[in-house]
Amino acid sequence: MSRIAVIIDEGFEDSEYQKPAQVLEEAGHQIIHVGLKEGAQVSGKNKSAQAHIDEAVTDASVEDFDALFIPGGMSPDHLRADPQAVSFVKDFVDSGKPVFSICHAPQLLINAQVLEGRKITGWKSIVQDIKNAGAEFVDKEVVEDRNIISSRCPDDIPAFNSRILKKLQQLENTRQAAEKT
Amino acid sequence: MSRIAVIIDEGFEDSEYQKPAQVLEEAGHQIIHVGLKEGAQVSGKNKSAQAHIDEAVTDASVEDFDALFIPGGMSPDHLRADPQAVSFVKDFVDSGKPVFSICHAPQLLINAQVLEGRKITGWKSIVQDIKNAGAEFVDKEVVEDRNIISSRCPDDIPAFNSRILKKLQQLENTRQAAEKT
Repeated sequence: MSRIAVIIDEGFEDSEYQKPAQVLEEAGHQIIHVGLKEGAQVSGKNKSAQAHIDEAVTDASVEDFDALFIPGGMSPDHLRADPQAVSFVKDFVDSGKPVFSICHAPQLLINAQVLEGRKITGWKSIVQDIKNAGAEFVDKEVVEDRNIISSRCPDDIPAFNSRILKKLQQLENTRQAAEKT
Repeated sequence: MSRIAVIIDEGFEDSEYQKPAQVLEEAGHQIIHVGLKEGAQVSGKNKSAQAHIDEAVTDASVEDFDALFIPGGMSPDHLRADPQAVSFVKDFVDSGKPVFSICHAPQLLINAQVLEGRKITGWKSIVQDIKNAGAEFVDKEVVEDRNIISSRCPDDIPAFNSRILKKLQQLENTRQAAEKT
């Protein structure tokens, strides 16, 4: 199954991390928390979820993962103040591997300067920032444009989860077909 | 002296509200808290400061104030999801009356679409958003461009306070000179 980097910091939106992470693990995927400091414990803004940072972003490499998941809340705004976190996200989008973005996550994509000409959705407060970054904002529960899958808010989580699982299944099918040939 | 609207919501950066507000009141200016709901109590993100909303932004009019102060933290991102808060800020900038912006405050100015061609500073995480909005980001403790005075972070507060007091003194001098003639 897939190895999924979750880039996360203090103040993430609890359900936007917890629910997709749970569904991914239940489907047999491996979650690796990437953050600013290895070994740190980061809390959700509602204090109902915590995550342990498995790997510092300075040590993380896109080659080690199959997909990237960026939860929302205040976490993306903290992470984008760190040039190495921004660079990791940029490398991921440029690699063509799947990137899952929800709520405030496009803030990291804006700083990575990868949104020009892309269709994406996100939290309502950042619509103008998304447009100013050259992207087309789409007001739907899930938007898929090449390797970026995005949703707006906690209400969209069921649709978000179903789409990211489907994307990972497609990856798996491609891998299995390649092994057979 | 001047009547200053402070537009504020939950999760403001405590010191970025508290210290300028204190200095303004000590200088004899009147602070009126404008927010999403009249009578609400909003807290700073560090829970060391609180503010009581005196007036809902739906009832607020630029004509009733001499200047606008936008503290940082998560407050600007909450406020900019509200079209009437954005409209109030836009009217203020367009009026030519002084607007004091610190840290994440330019997020509100971005949504008000008033930054094209302006020089401004702000918190490091939003530099790309500021540039994408058509403004020139200036990495200095205080930046003054026409009616907008801006600073980056809590460390800049002494310089920010001194510049906004000077601006209000200039307003007062102009008013007194007009009364004499």
